[in-house]
Parts: sequence; C-alpha cells; structure tokens
Amino acid sequence: MGAPEPAREIEFRPSRMIHFLDFSNDKMVAKAPEIAAKTDILLGNLEDAVPVDRKVAAREGLIRVGKEMDLGDTQLWARVNSLDSPWVLDDLTQVVAEIGHKLDVVMIPKVEGPWDIHFVDRLLAQLEARAGLTRPLLVHAILETALGVTNVEEIAAASPRMQGMSFGPADLAASRRMKTTRVGGGHPGYRVIEDPHADEGAARMTAQQDPWHYSIARMVDACTSNGLLPFYGPFGDIKDTLACETQFRAAFLLGCVGAWSLHPAQIDIAKKVFSPDPEEVRFAKKVIEAIPDGRGVHMIDGKMQDDATWKQCQVMVHLAELLAKKDPELAQAYGFTA
Amino acid sequence: MGAPEPAREIEFRPSRMIHFLDFSNDKMVAKAPEIAAKTDILLGNLEDAVPVDRKVAAREGLIRVGKEMDLGDTQLWARVNSLDSPWVLDDLTQVVAEIGHKLDVVMIPKVEGPWDIHFVDRLLAQLEARAGLTRPLLVHAILETALGVTNVEEIAAASPRMQGMSFGPADLAASRRMKTTRVGGGHPGYRVIEDPHADEGAARMTAQQDPWHYSIARMVDACTSNGLLPFYGPFGDIKDTLACETQFRAAFLLGCVGAWSLHPAQIDIAKKVFSPDPEEVRFAKKVIEAIPDGRGVHMIDGKMQDDATWKQCQVMVHLAELLAKKDPELAQAYGFTA
Amino acid sequence: MGAPEPAREIEFRPSRMIHFLDFSNDKMVAKAPEIAAKTDILLGNLEDAVPVDRKVAAREGLIRVGKEMDLGDTQLWARVNSLDSPWVLDDLTQVVAEIGHKLDVVMIPKVEGPWDIHFVDRLLAQLEARAGLTRPLLVHAILETALGVTNVEEIAAASPRMQGMSFGPADLAASRRMKTTRVGGGHPGYRVIEDPHADEGAARMTAQQDPWHYSIARMVDACTSNGLLPFYGPFGDIKDTLACETQFRAAFLLGCVGAWSLHPAQIDIAKKVFSPDPEEVRFAKKVIEAIPDGRGVHMIDGKMQDDATWKQCQVMVHLAELLAKKDPELAQAYGFTA
Amino acid sequence: MGAPEPAREIEFRPSRMIHFLDFSNDKMVAKAPEIAAKTDILLGNLEDAVPVDRKVAAREGLIRVGKEMDLGDTQLWARVNSLDSPWVLDDLTQVVAEIGHKLDVVMIPKVEGPWDIHFVDRLLAQLEARAGLTRPLLVHAILETALGVTNVEEIAAASPRMQGMSFGPADLAASRRMKTTRVGGGHPGYRVIEDPHADEGAARMTAQQDPWHYSIARMVDACTSNGLLPFYGPFGDIKDTLACETQFRAAFLLGCVGAWSLHPAQIDIAKKVFSPDPEEVRFAKKVIEAIPDGRGVHMIDGKMQDDATWKQCQVMVHLAELLAKKDPELAQAYGFTA
Amino acid sequence: MGAPEPAREIEFRPSRMIHFLDFSNDKMVAKAPEIAAKTDILLGNLEDAVPVDRKVAAREGLIRVGKEMDLGDTQLWARVNSLDSPWVLDDLTQVVAEIGHKLDVVMIPKVEGPWDIHFVDRLLAQLEARAGLTRPLLVHAILETALGVTNVEEIAAASPRMQGMSFGPADLAASRRMKTTRVGGGHPGYRVIEDPHADEGAARMTAQQDPWHYSIARMVDACTSNGLLPFYGPFGDIKDTLACETQFRAAFLLGCVGAWSLHPAQIDIAKKVFSPDPEEVRFAKKVIEAIPDGRGVHMIDGKMQDDATWKQCQVMVHLAELLAKKDPELAQAYGFTA
Amino acid sequence: MGAPEPAREIEFRPSRMIHFLDFSNDKMVAKAPEIAAKTDILLGNLEDAVPVDRKVAAREGLIRVGKEMDLGDTQLWARVNSLDSPWVLDDLTQVVAEIGHKLDVVMIPKVEGPWDIHFVDRLLAQLEARAGLTRPLLVHAILETALGVTNVEEIAAASPRMQGMSFGPADLAASRRMKTTRVGGGHPGYRVIEDPHADEGAARMTAQQDPWHYSIARMVDACTSNGLLPFYGPFGDIKDTLACETQFRAAFLLGCVGAWSLHPAQIDIAKKVFSPDPEEVRFAKKVIEAIPDGRGVHMIDGKMQDDATWKQCQVMVHLAELLAKKDPELAQAYGFTA
Repeated sequence: MGAPEPAREIEFRPSRMIHFLDFSNDKMVAKAPEIAAKTDILLGNLEDAVPVDRKVAAREGLIRVGKEMDLGDTQLWARVNSLDSPWVLDDLTQVVAEIGHKLDVVMIPKVEGPWDIHFVDRLLAQLEARAGLTRPLLVHAILETALGVTNVEEIAAASPRMQGMSFGPADLAASRRMKTTRVGGGHPGYRVIEDPHADEGAARMTAQQDPWHYSIARMVDACTSNGLLPFYGPFGDIKDTLACETQFRAAFLLGCVGAWSLHPAQIDIAKKVFSPDPEEVRFAKKVIEAIPDGRGVHMIDGKMQDDATWKQCQVMVHLAELLAKKDPELAQAYGFTA
Repeated sequence: MGAPEPAREIEFRPSRMIHFLDFSNDKMVAKAPEIAAKTDILLGNLEDAVPVDRKVAAREGLIRVGKEMDLGDTQLWARVNSLDSPWVLDDLTQVVAEIGHKLDVVMIPKVEGPWDIHFVDRLLAQLEARAGLTRPLLVHAILETALGVTNVEEIAAASPRMQGMSFGPADLAASRRMKTTRVGGGHPGYRVIEDPHADEGAARMTAQQDPWHYSIARMVDACTSNGLLPFYGPFGDIKDTLACETQFRAAFLLGCVGAWSLHPAQIDIAKKVFSPDPEEVRFAKKVIEAIPDGRGVHMIDGKMQDDATWKQCQVMVHLAELLAKKDPELAQAYGFTA
Repeated sequence: MGAPEPAREIEFRPSRMIHFLDFSNDKMVAKAPEIAAKTDILLGNLEDAVPVDRKVAAREGLIRVGKEMDLGDTQLWARVNSLDSPWVLDDLTQVVAEIGHKLDVVMIPKVEGPWDIHFVDRLLAQLEARAGLTRPLLVHAILETALGVTNVEEIAAASPRMQGMSFGPADLAASRRMKTTRVGGGHPGYRVIEDPHADEGAARMTAQQDPWHYSIARMVDACTSNGLLPFYGPFGDIKDTLACETQFRAAFLLGCVGAWSLHPAQIDIAKKVFSPDPEEVRFAKKVIEAIPDGRGVHMIDGKMQDDATWKQCQVMVHLAELLAKKDPELAQAYGFTA
Repeated sequence: MGAPEPAREIEFRPSRMIHFLDFSNDKMVAKAPEIAAKTDILLGNLEDAVPVDRKVAAREGLIRVGKEMDLGDTQLWARVNSLDSPWVLDDLTQVVAEIGHKLDVVMIPKVEGPWDIHFVDRLLAQLEARAGLTRPLLVHAILETALGVTNVEEIAAASPRMQGMSFGPADLAASRRMKTTRVGGGHPGYRVIEDPHADEGAARMTAQQDPWHYSIARMVDACTSNGLLPFYGPFGDIKDTLACETQFRAAFLLGCVGAWSLHPAQIDIAKKVFSPDPEEVRFAKKVIEAIPDGRGVHMIDGKMQDDATWKQCQVMVHLAELLAKKDPELAQAYGFTA
Repeated sequence: MGAPEPAREIEFRPSRMIHFLDFSNDKMVAKAPEIAAKTDILLGNLEDAVPVDRKVAAREGLIRVGKEMDLGDTQLWARVNSLDSPWVLDDLTQVVAEIGHKLDVVMIPKVEGPWDIHFVDRLLAQLEARAGLTRPLLVHAILETALGVTNVEEIAAASPRMQGMSFGPADLAASRRMKTTRVGGGHPGYRVIEDPHADEGAARMTAQQDPWHYSIARMVDACTSNGLLPFYGPFGDIKDTLACETQFRAAFLLGCVGAWSLHPAQIDIAKKVFSPDPEEVRFAKKVIEAIPDGRGVHMIDGKMQDDATWKQCQVMVHLAELLAKKDPELAQAYGFTA
Repeated sequence: MGAPEPAREIEFRPSRMIHFLDFSNDKMVAKAPEIAAKTDILLGNLEDAVPVDRKVAAREGLIRVGKEMDLGDTQLWARVNSLDSPWVLDDLTQVVAEIGHKLDVVMIPKVEGPWDIHFVDRLLAQLEARAGLTRPLLVHAILETALGVTNVEEIAAASPRMQGMSFGPADLAASRRMKTTRVGGGHPGYRVIEDPHADEGAARMTAQQDPWHYSIARMVDACTSNGLLPFYGPFGDIKDTLACETQFRAAFLLGCVGAWSLHPAQIDIAKKVFSPDPEEVRFAKKVIEAIPDGRGVHMIDGKMQDDATWKQCQVMVHLAELLAKKDPELAQAYGFTA
C-alpha cells in the first residue's frame, strides 16, 4: 500500500531456455549430464505430458538425477503437479527431502492467485527445515488461466521466494475459451484487414496479429516491477522451427529472458534468440564507452543517445557479459576476449 | 481477498449472435418469430438508435413480443436505457412486471463500476418479488467507457446475476478520445512500419494493428475468470461484410463467444464465425478419442498433444455439440449424426 | 471504493506537441519566443539529456525564459529531475519561487506510484503558498517503469493537480529488459508469422507488431477515466520522419492528444498528425448537423449513425474547433471561417 | 487510495433528537405540527414497529404530513423499510414523488455495505429527476448489523448524499448474538472485577462496562472523517429516564450529535444532554476570547490552553450558537443575548 | 468487493466450552469418555503447555482417543502446533490420516493473516483426499497477535472451512507489549478515575476497565458477519473462579458463544455462563409467542417490543432449545418439557 | 497483500517520556542538558503551544541545543509544524541541514493518511542527501484526527522510517466533535449505570468509562504489528497528578511504552509508571528461570505458566533490563546488580 521496497535482486544466471525432460524414462536419466551441457536450465517434469501411471517413475527419476548426476553449473528445476492434484504433496515432500540441496527452483503450474503461492511458501519452509536446508528454494509460477492473469501482480508479490513466471498459452487458451488448439504462436484467424480499395474487386491486405501481446506484456510488468524473471513457455509445433523462432523473439522483445524447450531443436532456437545479437551488443558497448557517466545527450553513429538509451544499452551489455562467461563462442562474438 | 469460489456455471446456451431489433416498428414485432428462428438471441433495443419520441413505443413493442409471440428456444433479451437516463426506471419496472417470465437477460449500457451493477441487482430483486418471478433475471453489461475498462474485473464480480459482457467500441472510442468515427474494426492510421531499406527510395512495408486487442483480452479474462460469457459488440459498416467477418473472427480467437448483429446480413456472418470450423472440430474429436483420460503426451497427425491441448480440444467439441443440437446442418458437418 | 465523482474538466488547450528545449544554451533562451510561436507547449528540460555540469545552467535558463520572454499563449512547462536525484528539490523550489506564475505544468519523470505524486503535491502546496501563487500548478507524470505501468490508475487518481501523462518508451524498455536500444517505434524482431504454405519452399508472410499497444491503451484509460490528457513521449530516430509520423499517428488513434518533439522537424509532424484530418472533420460536422439531439439512427453518406457515433463526431469537431482558434490555416481547412 | 478531498460540509442544523412517529395513526398526523415545535427532527417511521397491515397507512400518513402540515424549520425525515423488504420500492417512489420537496433526509435501515448506498443513491437520482426536484435528498444509514460495522468506513464514503448514521443496538445485538434483550444501555452481565482481597471473604468490587464503546467510537470516526453526523439510536426502556440520559450522554461524549426519541419524555432528555452545558460553553468562550488567533500556550482559570484545546472550545461554542438561534432560553443560558 | 453472499450457516452445535486435554498423559486418554460426557467440545492439545519432549506422545494420545474412545456426541477437536513450528506438518498429516473421520475441527494457533488459512486450507484438501474423507475438516483460528487483530476480517473470510475463532489474551498481550503477566481478566492498573472532590483530601473513586473490549468486539463482528462462531479463550487463574466467571460472562454479553476450559472447574463455570438464564429465556419465549410474525410494536411486561427485540429473543430461545436437547436439566429449567 | 515481512526491529531505547520544551526561551536552551539528564527523550517543540511570533525563535533555539549542548545519551527529537502550515518546509530544511546528525526522530503532527508519511519520507531523503547524513532520520506520527484513526494501519506501514506514534486526545476530540475541553483522561459524562434497585429510591451505582480505549488499542495493534513504538501523548491538567498517573498507567497496560511530559512533574510520573513494577519483574524473572526453554506447563507460586505467559514475562524483563542500564536505582530495585 505504501512506497515499495526496492525490487529484490534475483541472482541473474543464464536462463535462455528451460529444457523439459521426463525422467520416468531411464535413458533420459542417463543422458541428463549430456543434455545439461547444452542448456541453461534442466527441468524434471512431473506434471502435464507425464501419464498417470508414470507419475511416480518421473519423480523417482528426477531424484536419481539430483542425487547421482553431475550437471555442472546448469540449474536443476522441478515442475511439480498442480496444487489440486493427488500428487503434489508427495512431489514436494520427496523432492525437497531427497534433493532439496541440488534443486534451484520449483515450478508450480496453474497458479491462480497469491493464495497458491502462500501455500507453497509455507510448505517449502516446513520441508526445508525438516531437510536441514540452509538455502531457500525459489518458486516459479506458470501463468495459464484467466484468473491467474487477473491476479498476476499479486502473484508476483506474494512471496520473497518468487523467482519468475512462465507464460502457458495452451491452458490459458482453454481457460479463456479461445478457439484454437495450437500451443503458442499466432493464428490465421486473428487479423485486421485494410479498408476496401476504390477498385472493389482488388484483394485487401490483411495482417495477422499477436494474440498474446496483452498477457505477456502485463506479465513482464508484474515480474520486472517485483524483481522476477519472465519467461515465454512452450511452443507446440516442434517441426515449425521458423514459427517457434518468431514466437521466441517476440517474447524476447517484450522483455522475456528465456523460453521453454520441449525438444532438442528448440534449445538451439532459444540459444540463438535469447542471446543478444552481436551487432547490437557492439553498438551498446560503444554507447556506454562514449558516455561513461550515463548523463547528457550524445550523437553516436548518427543517433541521439541520452540517459535512457544508455540504460537500454546497459541491459544489453550486462546480459551479453553474463552469457559470455558460460559460452566462449559468444564471448568472442561479443568481443569480450580477454 | 481470499481464495475464490469456483466460477459459477452460467448455463451455456447457443449465443453466437445477439440480434438487435427496434420494436417501436410494428412490422418488426410481427416479424419477431421469423427472425428468432434464424438467431440465437433476440434483443429488444430501447437505448441508443431509438429516438426519444419512440422510446415508449419501443418498450411497448418489446412487451408485445414477450407476451404474444412464440420465439421457440431463442433467448429474449432487452437492452434498457442507460442508468442516468430518464427512461431506465420505467424500462425495468414495466418490462419485468409484464414479461419478466419470458425474458432471459437484461443488457445494461455504459456500466462504469460495480456500483452500477449493485443498483440493477437490488432493483431487479424488488421487481422480481413484486412480479412473483421465481427465476432470477440475469444481467449483461456493455463495456463502453474508459472507466468501465479500468473496473472490468470488479464489474464482472459484482453480482451472481452477471451473465456476460459486450464490447462497445464506438462509445469507448469517444470516451477515450480515440480519433475515429468508425464502429469497430481497424483503422488505417493505427499501424507499424518496417525499418527503412538500404535503398532509401524503396517503399517500406507497414501493417495495420488491432486497436482493440488490450481491451477485449482484458474483458475476456475478467469474464472467464468469473464464469461469464464475453461478446464482441457492434460492427458499424453493414456493407463491408469482409471487415465484419474479420473483426468477429478476431474476437472469436481472443475468446468471445458471439457478437451483435445489427442487420440480417450480420446474422449469417456471426453464425459462420462463431460456429467452430468442422475441420478443427474433427481434429479435436480425434485428439479426445485418442486420449480418453486427458493425460500424458501423444503424437496425433504428427503433432504433440498433452493435457493442455486436450483441454483446448474439449472447448472446441463442447461448443460444437451445443450448436449441433440446434442446427442439423452443423450436426452433420461436425459428424454428430445419430 | 464508492461511485466516482465526475471526472474533473482539465482545461483543454491545444496540446499537440510538447517541445523540449535545453535552456543551458543561451541561444535557446533567446530563440524561445520564436520557437514558442510554432508550438503548443514549450518545455524547459532539466532532466535526462542535460549533463550534470549543466543542470544549474538549464534551470537558470528556464527561469530567464519565464521571467524575460514573451511566449504568447503557448504553455510553458518544466521537466524537473527525478525524485531520487540530488537536483529535484532545488529545481522545484527555485522554479516555483521565480516563475511559478508563468508556469503551467511541472513534468515529473519516472513516477512509480501514487506516493510520488503525494510528495510533489504537498511540496508544491508549500512552495505556492510561499510564493503567493493563487493558481495551483498542475502535474504531468512520465510513465517509464514497469512499476509505474502497474500503478498507472492510482497515479492518475493521486491528486487533483494531475494534468496528464506521457509515455516514455526508452526507460520503460530498460526497466522491463526489453531487448531494444531504440526510443519508441516498432522493432523488426517483434512480429507474427503466417502458417507455412503447402509449398514448403515458399516464403511466409510476417507482420510487425506494435510493442507498445497494451501500455499505451492502459495509460489512455487511466487518464481519460480521471479527466487527464495522455501523450505519447519521445521518438528517438530524428531522421526517420516517416516512422515518427507512424508512431505518432498510432498514439493518436489510441487516444493520445499529443507527443513530444525533440527536434523542430518533429513539431511539424506532430502538428500534422494531432490536428484531425479535414475530411474527417467535415464528415463529423455533417453527422452532428444532421442529428441535432444526438439521438436515434440515421443514414449519412450510406453509413448508419447513432448516439455513439455522434459522440465520436463530437470529439473530432471539438478538437478541430479548439485548434482552429489558434491556427487560421486549420480554421480554413476545417471550414470554420467566420 | 490517494489523499482525500476535504470533508464535505453537511449543513449543520440543530439535530439533537430524531423523534419517531407512526403516521398510520391519524391523531399523530394531526399532532405533527405541535410535536415538531418541540423537536429538531421529525421522522415518519415506515419500518420496524409499524405492523404489516399498517405499512401503507403509515406511508400515506407521512405524505399527508408532508403535504398539509406546517412543521416550521423542523426537519422532516422518513425511515423507509429495509432494502430487502417488499415495501421499500413503493416507499421511496411515492414519498419522493409526493413530498420530495419537503423531505430533508431518507433513513435507510440495516445498511451492510456500500452497495446498499449505491442502490439508494441511483434510485433517488431517478426519482428526483422524475419529480423535478432540484435539491438532492440526503441519506442517513442505520448501523445495526455486524457486517455493517465491518464496512462502516466504506458506507460513510459511498455517496455524497450521505448525511449521517445512527447506531442501532437492538438489531446489532441480535446480529452479533449478544445475549441481551435490551435496547441500548449497559447490561449487568458485562463487567470487570477487582482482584481478591487479602481477606478472602471480603466482597470484591466490580464495575459495569460499556458494551457499545468500540462500535460507537468507530462509527464516529467513520462519520466525522467523511463530514457526516453520527447519532446514537434508540433507548428501549422508556421508563428508565436516568439510564436513558446516561446512555445519551455517553454517546455525546464520544462524539454523537443527537439521539432518537421514541417517546415525548425522551425529547427532553435529548434536549438536555445534547445542548452543551452552559458552564462549559462559558468557559469555552473565555478561552476563545483570550486567544484570538488560536495559537500559543495560555493559562486560563489555572489550566493550560493551546491550539488543540482552542479547537475543542470552538466545537463547543459553534454548537451552542447554532442551538441558541432556535431556542431563546438556551441563548440566554449561554449568554448570547443580543 | 461486491455485495456479500449470505453468511454460511455453520452447523450450530452446543459449544459452551472447549475443554483442553494433554493426551501425552495416558490417564487422560483413558478418562476421555468420562470427561467428554461433561463437556461440549473435547480438544486434544498439541501446542503450548505441551513440552517439547512430549509433543509426539500428545499426538499419539490424541490419535488413540480418536480411534478407540467413544465420545458420544461431544465434538473432538485438535489444536496443532503453530505454522512455523517443526511439528505442525506431522501433526496435520498424521491426525488427518489416522482420525480425520472422527475429528470435527482443527484449531490453528497464532494466525496472523489470510495467508495462514490459505496454507491450512490447501494442505487439508490434500490430506483429506489422501485419506478418502468426504466431509471437509473445519478450521478454528486463535487470535493472539497484534497483526492477527489487524487482519481479523480477512482471516474470517479466508476459507469456507472457517468455523470460528478464539481470543488468546496471553500471547496477544505479549505481542502488544501490554504490561501484564496474567492470562485474561482485568488488571488493577487499567482504570479511570473520577474528578477530584471539592474536598481535596477525599478519596476519588476509580473504576477498573475491560482491557479486551475492542479486540473481542471486533472479533465478534468479523466472525458473525462471516457466519463463524467467536469464543473467548483461556482464563489463567484457575483458583479465581469468580474472576473467571466474570470474564466469561463479559465475553458472552459481547457475543461469544463459549470459552476454553483448562481445568474441570472451568467446565462448570462455562456451562453456567454460556447457557442463557432461564428467566431471560422465559421472557424471550413470551415475546415470541405474543408476536408471532415479529412485526409491529407491543407492550409486554411493561416494555416495548418490536421487530428488533423480537430478533434478540429469537437468538436467546434458539440457543436455549439447542442446549436443552443435550441437557434434560436445562430443558426443564427452560420449560421445554415435552 | 501477501504474507508480511517480519516486523523491523526498531532499536529499543529507553522511551518512557518525551519531554516537551519550547526553545524560543533562551533559559530553556541553557537548561537543556540538565533536563536531559532526567528524561529519556528531549523534544524541541515547534508546533502547537508555540505562538506565531516565536516560531522562528523556537526553531533556532532547537538548532542551538543540537549544536552546542551535550545531552548525553538522551534522545533529541523535534516536533515540526503541521504539513499544511507555512513553517514546516523551513522547519525540516533547516533542522536537518543544521543538526540532522544529532537528531533521532522527527515528530509529525496531524498525520491523516499514508500520503503524509510519503511526503515526509521523500523530503527527508532529499535533505539527508544534501546534508551528507548517513543514518536515516526516523519519523513519529501523532494520531489526532478521526481520519488518522481510520487510516492508522496504513500510516504505520507507510515507510521504513516509521519509529512510532503518539496519541493526541485534544485534537482528536475536536476532530470527532467529542464534547469535552479536557486534554486526555476520563470525563464525568462518559459512564454506565447499574439497573434500578427494587427499592426505587436507592441511588444507582455508576462507573466512569475510558473514552480512549478503542483508539489506543487500535493504535497499539497498528504499531506493534509493524514494529513501531506506541506512546500516549499529553495529559493537560498539570496539577492533577493522580489523574495523570491513572491515564499513563492505563496506556501502559494497553501496550504504550511511554507518554509525553509537558511539565517536570510529569517526568517523574512517567518514570514511575513506565518502569515496570519491581515485584512483577522479580516474578517474571522467576518464571523465566524456571522454564529455560519456554515450553510446557509449570506451576509457579501457585499459578500455571506456559509458553504464552513465558513470553509475557520476557516482555517485562527485557524492558527492565533496558531501563536498568541507564538507571542504577532501578537496576537495584530489579535485582540486576552485578
């Protein structure tokens, strides 16, 4: 109600993609280290897409990964089942007890209001105390119902554990009764059309529109004003890599820091999209070097730069530096060679 | 403030179009049954577009329709005059007293906050008690002012009578001082432009944007998170059927269940747009049949399906089933033949 | 919480552009009257783009303009430094003391919540009393952080001094971590793409999207539902006049009344965009003349007009009349000749 | 949410007692002028205490009083039936239509939240317009349910029509399940007891407590912070004039301006209690005369007086002046002789 | 935000005392049926007063009582440890799993806001589903911190499981830094004093005040406006039965339905205090019989009765009827003999 | 909106009395060190009780005290003029600039809502930065209007600078139109009366009530739930030391930590009242020693003690320890001798 505290500083680690794996599959358990080397975040999925008869196996597989596998500095996350499902209590209890010290973030699906986060917050506190953990587990909410969008600012502020949010277009579409069976991306039916031509027979140009603009932009504001990281979620048509890239980049432009990858092919798309363009990074570095104190107005490459554009350049360069530490190729592309 | 009650289940009847008629015209009264046969909802309009000297005639005509005409299973609604007009008290008093048992929904224009719904709610309770009605009248709000958009979530939650909302672009444009004199649709002045070409003389591509995206998407969330039905409202250029269809379909994609028809030609457009595409319905049925319990991940026609897409398919098929009951042609198109 | 008071009527003066000047430059001080003659609002900028070592000079230059220059009926505004900067207290104290009676509006950057307006409100009251001013200074907030967008309705309602808001895309982009270093306009990376063609090799059409739609539309609602005037802010690429015009017009369509001009070239763009089109004005006048009481439904030039479109026409004509008083050329174009 | 507007100035007329009459009794109609001469406010009661078969007669009697009787400058109020009763719509419709220009205030029983005031507010606006009234009717709410107390601040702020509130202890007691069948006053069962004596056999002193302290004090704050007048309501034991006087004076001390009188004997009690004590008025006048500007610290009659006590004295003297205008005896007692 | 739903009807069972037992003591387990016969509610205490090394034994004892003992129609409740303790998760998990079908209510200590209830609500849902329970467990909150009092209305509304609240004066005193080490009751230091006598040497009368008035009255409003039952909690000085009775009766008068008993002696005090007085019941019955429809004004035993006092009498008689069903002696005292 | 952060720990220094001095009097400036030795907090008063023509002298006197006098470890506070007065801006600007490093707390009169604290918060930040202060000044609000009481929880939470609140009964009485000209204490007119005796002629006992119970209790909750210290404010009748002591002790019992002293005689009263009674301290020490871990139930001196009473004893002993450090006599009385 009063003036807000300064936004918490979530430690900003590379987060370009959250790669989803179903560890009920023993092969996937075995391959975890190999896949981890290619991705920023590895997530053991216990919820949707895992069939009922493999829920327990998926949980046990995740625990084996946490206990036995070396994932380097790749983050390990878990997506537990939804809060009204019969599995979530065991998911949380066992995962925290067994691999709480290896886990970075717990992803909670179908969050609809701050009450959902309050429940998870308190339960984690109990389970952490029991397990003797000293580092609090963070919470990531999926935004995938109309009610969740309506409460998104309160969800973001519901607990200091909040690490970020992902945008879930498929469940959200169903919740809103949007008439699509796609998972993310545009839809040929959502468009505007130009006025008729004087020549009535001539075809009228139409342009497709982004059905997710409002929801993603509002989620980004809720997240960034509370110090959280916003992510785009799944893109369903694995084969349409061009549409996937377009969707990821749109989210990137609106402020998302990463996306989900459901297939190895999407890891590379996410890496490409969410690593800033070397050209832009070089330009941003030039601006920062030319304006050491970030004040005043300057002409650089024929464009006017001031305090505000200087901050935009900082965002770009900070992200590039972070990613360059992990990736020598990027370091070279950005010109951060030692 | 606390965890929400589960959304009420508004009885979901076919609602693809709300057809507006001015019953101050005796011919319209006579034709009501014939028109009703072609439309899902028939609305007697008492407000805008009815001139001052015919307000009483429009009300009396509506009452005659309610009393004397057989509309089959088509819903009968009334749009009363605005809450600050000199007619609304008589509109409500007489309509409820005379044909309250025949009326399904009262549409309230220019709703700006929950206080407007509180007034209608209490007044209807008084009038229903007086008329001995046993079934509560439902309320449909038109969203057509900037203040209304700002309060849309509170309006949706203001009473258990709330049945839905319609989006009113013309009044909303005036309230916001948007610089257009159109009723719905896009506008050639709202667009983005591509960057200049290296070849400076070359024309730059521009694309028109949807000026209503935010407002409709937020209304859909407010409605669906409270169990209400969202509608797109009027499209003003009767002759431009292609632009009308484009607007309706955009609303459909964003989650609206129907639109207004101001002219018989728009009935057919609404019927076409808001009845889901048979191809999509067939695909959705296939998904549901292949995944009886809605769990796990499956490949169908080369696309990955899981719990979330299964829900999207349910939305599609449920709507198709509902419409098929009323329309044998659709039943056949959807393959719901007995 | 209760029913709102009717929106205050901010005196609506021509406000098509806020022209930014840095009066630390003596030449600019001298040219102020000449520039004032071409612009609706002249703003002395003390914040971003003014380097640290010229902050005092800019303030003193502004005071000289206020004291010594005759700006005709052009409004004089000041943009002070941000509320957490070391300059703002002196900015406000000196400017109000020295030229409070000449100043119309104080622009406050980086407003994040109602608390910021509460501070300015009380401080101005103190300074006005000290200076013996009898007309309250108005406040204009810049919306340029994610938190500000989240609180925009509360900011708009925070004080009866609130005159309007400007949209600041560069700082907002940085605050949201949007990946752009541009100031306003679209971005080639934010687009949707059409579905693949049957012919897989064929190029797929993509259309750029408006990254600012949600934020501007929500700001317009917050402003107009509280009786404030919304403005688009800066467009950074001075040379790309076509993109500037496109951006300004998009804002105009969504309900903004004006924009910032950072360069004389942009004054003319703003004048062109934010003065309604003579064709539209003439059409609007015809509608109003044909429907003196604004009631009922009418066919004009083959288009149906009713109470709602009549209001849209009123918005158009009122603005035209206002501008025509200041500009004889426009008066003639609109057909308002005496 | 923001800084509040200055509290409205309800015209402060003598309001020491609201005398309740049942005008279904023709004799009471005839005696109205005579009783009016002795009371500040005369109220026609249509609600509790009027039996069902005389509801219409009470309403008609009130209308006759309004139309035919001369009440001098005594206010005329009406208490209508509760908002969920079958009479309230006719009560309001007929009373406003017939004697709206003679009526000062409408008293609404069992108000539970701002929604109740929103309903009355809008309905009165409709009825006033119909009746051609130019002075808005004011609204007085009775606080007599637990939910009403919980929402008392929102009720007070719900409409600019709000004139005041009355405290209704009997219904409130039932709503709270307080175990009493009394109407106002203390109860022998609500007490505290001193610690036991060393001499265990000795009787321990106990003191009765005020069961209404919290509720009345909170109502006074809600009223005075919104510019409304708080009243104590009924005292049921007509014969126990001493207890009645004690209850009235307790309310007076806590900030109430008057009380209900249910019997002529209570008129005199209210007059005595709610007219400030001449001794106190004389002392207050002395303080004000000694400190013309209300600033600094002064010793008067051996007591220290400063800005705050000066304001307390102003409250006392203003009330005395107001009452003295109506009552020559009081004028003399207060020393306000011309 | 909108008009409230009608308050839920918590099934109103005899609830005059909640008798606290520590079942870590085997003798207490054995005596449970015998004690149950004398009390309305039997509570197995796991929290404060149970030492750390007997927490597990107390839980196991309670489970044995639930499984093996026949308590007749006396309710069985459990007070679990506080939500930030290391025991509460096991308390809830084991108690619900083992004796969830025998348990009526879970008492939660130190509730500070709705978030605490949200946690318990969701966790119970999980545990009930696991245990196959079909009747939802209810929740009773103890109000014993300053923050809890501040949020009491939101706590009461936080879940449909809410059954009631108890007032905990000892923890609350510590939380507020009240300077007392007593548990409930008055304190000799909290008093007001009469003005000095003219005879300065004469002793001045002082009266002790109720330090809990505000807190209990506000809790009663929060409870009754949400359909919950308010209880007074513990009275610490077991030997001072007179002070205990005085405290209990004060709570009864303010609207509480019962209190805690910490010792068998307090069971009888509670039974006496919270069973309404036969004289008052008889009077209330007479009022109800004389006014069958609860309308109008009547003189009974020389006191005026109307709709409001009739409701007060209903409260009294309903409670008497409820208690009479369980207690033949009371039935006779109230004259409810068959 | 979400779960609260743990209450901040305001450094708890001896705060039994805030002694008010008017430093426009040179003698008072000179005596400051001597008075400081006897009091916990010394306050330079600039507001009420300082006449207009000595406002500047009072401010300058305070600055001299801050600059030139050695006050030992006694806190130095300033009460500035109210936020709508012509002096407050200079009060704050000069005091912070000149003696900001010597000042502990700024007391703000007539705070009505969080907006007042927002203003002071931001202004202090500006002035501290200017003065190069590294320790933030704290803010103490006086609660002395009806609106302030209504907003007390929001005021307490409005800024991390909030140190505490004082209760101002004289202004509050005027704001509420309470009919008293006293400053604090009871009033002979606020009482309850016992029921009549069977012997009608016998005198009926009446007991005076505490008119401030609700307001102080609510302030204490608002303060302690946010980690602030609540104080009772002024007692006006300097000569009536017994009534002063009674009022102070009532506040102490309800949770206040200290009071204002307006005269040296009141310093001693405050010292006596707000230093806990040695008997109670000794008893509390015994409880703590007997229950080292604060768990379980114990019989001590024949009274049952558990976790809750243990906490009450901690409050008592902590305060005693704090005061003993400053006062050797108290140390001895409490038995804290080394």
